Amino acid sequence: MAKPHTSSDHLAAVQLLLCCTLLVAFAAPTATAASAPAAPSPAKVNMTWDVEYILWAPDCQQRVMVGINGKFPGPTITARAGDVVRVTVNNKLHTEGLVIHWHGMRQVGTPWADGTASISQCAINPGDSFTYEFVADKPGTFFYHGHFGMQRAAGLYGSLIVNATAAQDEPYRRDYDGGELNVLLSDWYHENVYAQAAGLERKDKHFEWIGEPQTILINGRGQYECMLGKVTRYHRGIDRYAKTCVRGKEAKLCRDEERCLRRSECGPYCPESQCAPVVFDVEPGKTYRLRIASTTTLSALNLQVQGHELTVVEADGNPVEPFKVTDIDIYSGESYSVLLTTSQKPTFYRPGAFWISVGVRGRHPKTLPATAVLRYTNSKFDWPGSAPPETPAWDDIDHSKSFTYRIKALRNNAITKTRPPRSSALNRTIVMLNTQTMVGGHVRWAINNVSLALPATPYLGAYHYGLQGSAFDAAGEAPDGVPEGYNVSRPPGENEGYAARLSDRVYELPHGALVDVVLQNADMMRERASETHPWHLHGHDFWVLGYGDGRYDAGKDLARLNMEDPPLRNTVVVFPHGWTALRFVADNTGAWAFHCHIEPHLHMGMGAVFVEGVEKMRELKVPREAMMCGVISTSAAVVTPAAPRTPAPAP
Amino acid sequence: MAKPHTSSDHLAAVQLLLCCTLLVAFAAPTATAASAPAAPSPAKVNMTWDVEYILWAPDCQQRVMVGINGKFPGPTITARAGDVVRVTVNNKLHTEGLVIHWHGMRQVGTPWADGTASISQCAINPGDSFTYEFVADKPGTFFYHGHFGMQRAAGLYGSLIVNATAAQDEPYRRDYDGGELNVLLSDWYHENVYAQAAGLERKDKHFEWIGEPQTILINGRGQYECMLGKVTRYHRGIDRYAKTCVRGKEAKLCRDEERCLRRSECGPYCPESQCAPVVFDVEPGKTYRLRIASTTTLSALNLQVQGHELTVVEADGNPVEPFKVTDIDIYSGESYSVLLTTSQKPTFYRPGAFWISVGVRGRHPKTLPATAVLRYTNSKFDWPGSAPPETPAWDDIDHSKSFTYRIKALRNNAITKTRPPRSSALNRTIVMLNTQTMVGGHVRWAINNVSLALPATPYLGAYHYGLQGSAFDAAGEAPDGVPEGYNVSRPPGENEGYAARLSDRVYELPHGALVDVVLQNADMMRERASETHPWHLHGHDFWVLGYGDGRYDAGKDLARLNMEDPPLRNTVVVFPHGWTALRFVADNTGAWAFHCHIEPHLHMGMGAVFVEGVEKMRELKVPREAMMCGVISTSAAVVTPAAPRTPAPAP
Repeated sequence: MAKPHTSSDHLAAVQLLLCCTLLVAFAAPTATAASAPAAPSPAKVNMTWDVEYILWAPDCQQRVMVGINGKFPGPTITARAGDVVRVTVNNKLHTEGLVIHWHGMRQVGTPWADGTASISQCAINPGDSFTYEFVADKPGTFFYHGHFGMQRAAGLYGSLIVNATAAQDEPYRRDYDGGELNVLLSDWYHENVYAQAAGLERKDKHFEWIGEPQTILINGRGQYECMLGKVTRYHRGIDRYAKTCVRGKEAKLCRDEERCLRRSECGPYCPESQCAPVVFDVEPGKTYRLRIASTTTLSALNLQVQGHELTVVEADGNPVEPFKVTDIDIYSGESYSVLLTTSQKPTFYRPGAFWISVGVRGRHPKTLPATAVLRYTNSKFDWPGSAPPETPAWDDIDHSKSFTYRIKALRNNAITKTRPPRSSALNRTIVMLNTQTMVGGHVRWAINNVSLALPATPYLGAYHYGLQGSAFDAAGEAPDGVPEGYNVSRPPGENEGYAARLSDRVYELPHGALVDVVLQNADMMRERASETHPWHLHGHDFWVLGYGDGRYDAGKDLARLNMEDPPLRNTVVVFPHGWTALRFVADNTGAWAFHCHIEPHLHMGMGAVFVEGVEKMRELKVPREAMMCGVISTSAAVVTPAAPRTPAPAP
Repeated sequence: MAKPHTSSDHLAAVQLLLCCTLLVAFAAPTATAASAPAAPSPAKVNMTWDVEYILWAPDCQQRVMVGINGKFPGPTITARAGDVVRVTVNNKLHTEGLVIHWHGMRQVGTPWADGTASISQCAINPGDSFTYEFVADKPGTFFYHGHFGMQRAAGLYGSLIVNATAAQDEPYRRDYDGGELNVLLSDWYHENVYAQAAGLERKDKHFEWIGEPQTILINGRGQYECMLGKVTRYHRGIDRYAKTCVRGKEAKLCRDEERCLRRSECGPYCPESQCAPVVFDVEPGKTYRLRIASTTTLSALNLQVQGHELTVVEADGNPVEPFKVTDIDIYSGESYSVLLTTSQKPTFYRPGAFWISVGVRGRHPKTLPATAVLRYTNSKFDWPGSAPPETPAWDDIDHSKSFTYRIKALRNNAITKTRPPRSSALNRTIVMLNTQTMVGGHVRWAINNVSLALPATPYLGAYHYGLQGSAFDAAGEAPDGVPEGYNVSRPPGENEGYAARLSDRVYELPHGALVDVVLQNADMMRERASETHPWHLHGHDFWVLGYGDGRYDAGKDLARLNMEDPPLRNTVVVFPHGWTALRFVADNTGAWAFHCHIEPHLHMGMGAVFVEGVEKMRELKVPREAMMCGVISTSAAVVTPAAPRTPAPAP
């Protein structure tokens, strides 16, 4: 990966790997040679980040974003499996707290470093600092992002790449000789997140949905309302403003400092522009690994590379049985590695430069596809002359299911223990009905009729200090199971007697329990509508045991679940009107979020909290400074144990 | 005042005073009959506020604002002198802390209730609550506002009216028989405050000034890019988009719920509109008190009432020697009461309805004047037919000085002790040079070459817990006095050897010290430019001893200061290239901000902190929950005293 912005002195080994190919026109990610000699693994990856507001033009339109060290997206962290990653975060936002979640890191033994406000820690106050320290426990393609309010949607995210060591190898490590290309996908809204949140919270008919994003971003770059390539009828069908980005005036524009440097709106064709397209330079006749991750606010995306087949080898840091596709679906919270061979012979129409096209699926798209360029080093042209390929039909749900169902654990692999335990002394099944519903005049998402409203005190601290009763509603557990008689094929309004409520109750899991979760989708408030939700679990990978349509029926479906080669993942989708079953072992003491990764859905309550190893919580060495908020900061229970306990000398 | 939104059950007496006249067309502030029978003073004014993001259209353009209880501006607090005001603030902002400052309240004995983040308390965390409790210590016209980051500019403000009791009377109380009209002035920017702040912090030539506001608001209502009245050549000179607001389509528009209710953009003529004009209904032949306060982000304003003379009687809650004017200047942080007699006879051109016009002065205006309507109850028309009066020339600085210099303390008044002490055993003079300067590539404002950068730990808590050394730079005081040889008539770049720096040092004042402060203005970074700055002191009123042009010369100027009838105020301006001298007695133990009330100027470091009664700080009964941030939250020094101190029983 190009430009790993890091303050660490200990990254020499990683940096050895960075044999960047020269970029002539654009500052964009480049390939890393996978064949570079392995260097000894550094013990620590140290970084210091100033998180602050920046004026940035990711799609050639300037807005305020939450940036890191003055840039968007945040710096790419590159570590090796087993490294300790140590990031000191200085909160330079003036009035906002913040946390950073390391998406895919399991945080075994460091649950306070998971970066979830109200769950694993207090938000870092403005002007304060906090140091995250955790082990990059496995190789794979990950990312990090804000996990407080809607700060992820404000731009607080970046890539986290964990390379394999000799000991913890990746089975496809020797299958690519060309290097790696990093592709972090996101979507971008021009409306700020405070307004987005305010709209979501308006009552009754005043509710304002965030709508479709203005722009899809590839590595933080996109072009609003214009396409780099030719606009086809397909594109014009998406957005009536679709046009090809104007070219030819760059020379003058790029020299116009007032416009180009101050406002950063000089368009995509100036080299200094923040919305300059991403160009990946590749050598012909080699195989490359594309690391693709999605941290979108809303959009389900589909990626294809013109004229190139993709072989899927990794999902969420776990090896999968390789399979070939022409395009991949990717939901928010997911990551994949795909292998691509630069086998195309240049032709007149494709002179060695190819479009990478990323479009919206699953919702009627109102956002133009994003495009990047895959450019062979023997190309005579900078640019593909053709139109970018069209995204598969947004509502072709079978296409989506087909892709998702093909993902299986890599068989016969020594590293990944592919088969889940069949049973345990501590078994628990939690069925989670996902409904869109009204609570007190507000549109909310609920799980078994409970819509998550996070408390001011983090759960981890509450359990650690024994303050459950005062920090949140600990009088009972969050509800377990679809309410008897609920008809998932009808809107909530027709399921009378199932009024949803706000709650901050949790699920308590004893250490070592074997937990099955069934995500049950249902009809939304508007009839015969149901959406795809990507659910992400913190603190774990889980086995995806199966998917089904309609209502989950344990008597019938349980026996059909895949116990042979279920893939391990940290994010999984539940399809419209369907269900998804997953399994994990509750062996990681801590408080872990499990939620829909669509930012507005989580904001509207679509999540749950698992507290694992309650009995071990008080023994954790929780950093005191991470917990000084809510009821903890003023509790006598916290003050007393911390005070010196030396007995007073006898008089 | 109309609609005092209050949750208190104890306000019956205050509410008795609210004999609202009926408003036919618009929901707008109305008059309060001053002649209503006096009721016994309630002991407490209780309110509960949810502070949250709202989508609002104060000038017919919807933006996100920080509102209180779902509305903008915040509810008007109406108290009587001596009342205890108790406001429980629930922070419903998702990621932002907040505090609320009660501008003009001296907070004697309750310095932790002053509502200044980093100074008097920690910001209230998202999801948490804090109860402000303080005495409304004197009658007058005040307001409240956010005092963290730039949250005031985001809309977090409202009126605070303290009525006189029989014991603590106002000398002009019997001079008006018509009632009171409340006029809270502000300016409004379409760009959100996060982007504003980011622009101010950009380095070197990338610096982005916030520019002139889009709209001036009267009681939170304005009209963007259009005038309610006729547009004259004067108005067109201000803004090339100046036009009269379109009328006639209201009937259709007002019924369009999608546009009018959801987006709140139905224009100024629908009764439900958030930007409907303010109309004051008044009876002819009576005298009214206009309470006028300004909480602008930037603009110096000028208010006039067409065809009516104004008699100034109050400034910042202090009686002044009455004087008559046709218009008043008002700077951010100031308040005035003026008396107005409805003596106009209706004519064809002025059929009993008159423009109240509020325009910008002191900076080349790019904002149209705001207008409200003063409507006699015998008027045959809703609306003045004429053009609103023109604001005096923005650069007529003599007009401004003339108005300001006329403000003197009311003579021969029993309540206000008008004469300042001549001397004290503890005298201190602090001369404060105000410069615009560069610090580390950032444009900053500095006082004696120190630009204020507030710490993460509030000063009040730091002193209370004895943590000065770790909470901020306590190795010395903030610098006192204009650096020797500094030429205030030249830009800082030509004053070599006076590099400014960031600092969080304070001025420590022993209890009872008689403190003179001289604000010294100077040339800005662009040559021959100097601006008017309204400086506001927390915790005190001060005597304004005098103003002068050029550099303050104690030898010459000290003897000329006004010791006879200097007005008491909490906010005072320093004119371009001039100086202002003020005096107060440091008899209020606490940590008090003293700063330019222009929001971006304070953000850029134009402020100072006075710590009074250092020796008494540890005895204060500071609420622990207000101080649990920064170094206090993890300090052993805080933990230890709070733990039970009972000696261990002898073995």
